[in-house]
Amino acid sequence: MKTMLESKMHILKKSIHAPDFLNEPIEYGNAFSRGIKVDAGNITFLFISGTASVDKHGNTYCPNDFSNQVKRTFDNLTALLKAEGTDWHDVVQTRCYLKDMKFYDEFNIYRTHFYKENNLDPFPSSVAVQATLCRPDLLVEIEATAILNNSKEK
Amino acid sequence: MKTMLESKMHILKKSIHAPDFLNEPIEYGNAFSRGIKVDAGNITFLFISGTASVDKHGNTYCPNDFSNQVKRTFDNLTALLKAEGTDWHDVVQTRCYLKDMKFYDEFNIYRTHFYKENNLDPFPSSVAVQATLCRPDLLVEIEATAILNNSKEK
Amino acid sequence: MKTMLESKMHILKKSIHAPDFLNEPIEYGNAFSRGIKVDAGNITFLFISGTASVDKHGNTYCPNDFSNQVKRTFDNLTALLKAEGTDWHDVVQTRCYLKDMKFYDEFNIYRTHFYKENNLDPFPSSVAVQATLCRPDLLVEIEATAILNNSKEK
Repeated sequence: MKTMLESKMHILKKSIHAPDFLNEPIEYGNAFSRGIKVDAGNITFLFISGTASVDKHGNTYCPNDFSNQVKRTFDNLTALLKAEGTDWHDVVQTRCYLKDMKFYDEFNIYRTHFYKENNLDPFPSSVAVQATLCRPDLLVEIEATAILNNSKEK
Repeated sequence: MKTMLESKMHILKKSIHAPDFLNEPIEYGNAFSRGIKVDAGNITFLFISGTASVDKHGNTYCPNDFSNQVKRTFDNLTALLKAEGTDWHDVVQTRCYLKDMKFYDEFNIYRTHFYKENNLDPFPSSVAVQATLCRPDLLVEIEATAILNNSKEK
Repeated sequence: MKTMLESKMHILKKSIHAPDFLNEPIEYGNAFSRGIKVDAGNITFLFISGTASVDKHGNTYCPNDFSNQVKRTFDNLTALLKAEGTDWHDVVQTRCYLKDMKFYDEFNIYRTHFYKENNLDPFPSSVAVQATLCRPDLLVEIEATAILNNSKEK
């Protein structure tokens, strides 16, 4: 027997776009979405892909300039969250990949500033490791997971 | 007061096996499951472990051969998804670790071909970084998360 | 029309603390939580941040000593799980970052011992890669995701 609740439950997936900030990876041959929104009844998950300092044409923004890349990376993530009507308050987890751990202090200074400016409390969970990224001129890449109410359905 | 819904809610976890493709890691002393299925009411999550080009005996398949390793890795992941009655359409996220970023173009060519062949729309979210893997002869490792209806309960 | 279930659904996020084991990262300027608990109706998610061999004052515990660091890392993770009333049986996924893959055998010996001592069945899913961590004297870092019933609400 299916209850009424079970019968109306269905999981919807869609890709997330922020074309004013980031192009689509498939334009340069990479088959992934900038993010995936999963509506699962009352819960919505946003899985934002590893996001770097890329512009709307797919070019690296500020090659080899950590200070501007980290700012652009957070701006790109913000744009992807905003595209689904949300913001950093719903982000529960980030993974941060730095090309060189020598940037870690600068990364933390910017992130702390950014999160405080956004009044985040609690801060998201996080992991940060050093990793070589997909382009030699990219210095930082961040992925994010958000969990929110499926408020749009109301 | 517990509602009827709450009273029947329970979270079930089981490990995922695809013995025709991959052996169990514990056979060589590694205590992890190839994947975990979590049934949480109407939602089912599959957390597929980092999966590489390993055969059913636990040996590296095609050592140091990127082209065949990436194919085998996707085949192993497909087998693990299939073991739970699903496929790539339910994958929302992947994390891809390449031993050397010089393989990134070849990786993308194969992945794009594979996803298009499987008619994926949208493509999963993704992150890809360079990382040294657990065996020197392994060149690629991919983990995947799928979210699906708990359709088997119907 | 909103059902009674939908109207009472709300997602609650809080940070996870285990001050007897680990200090708060913000004390040394890093804006992340040791973990985030997400209560989403009947399901609770714990996203435990990348956790290393750190003590309650934020200092590295046993610098450059893999054997003691891996033990401390698991103890720190256990303390964070315990802070929310749970344990390793609810962990569905780990990501393990080793500073050098030469530690992988020792890592597996300890992990297998630890999981068997905790009677884990199934074992969590896992990925393990080599990565340089945030401090030169840290040799291992592990993040974990747990999914459990929201049993505390009953």
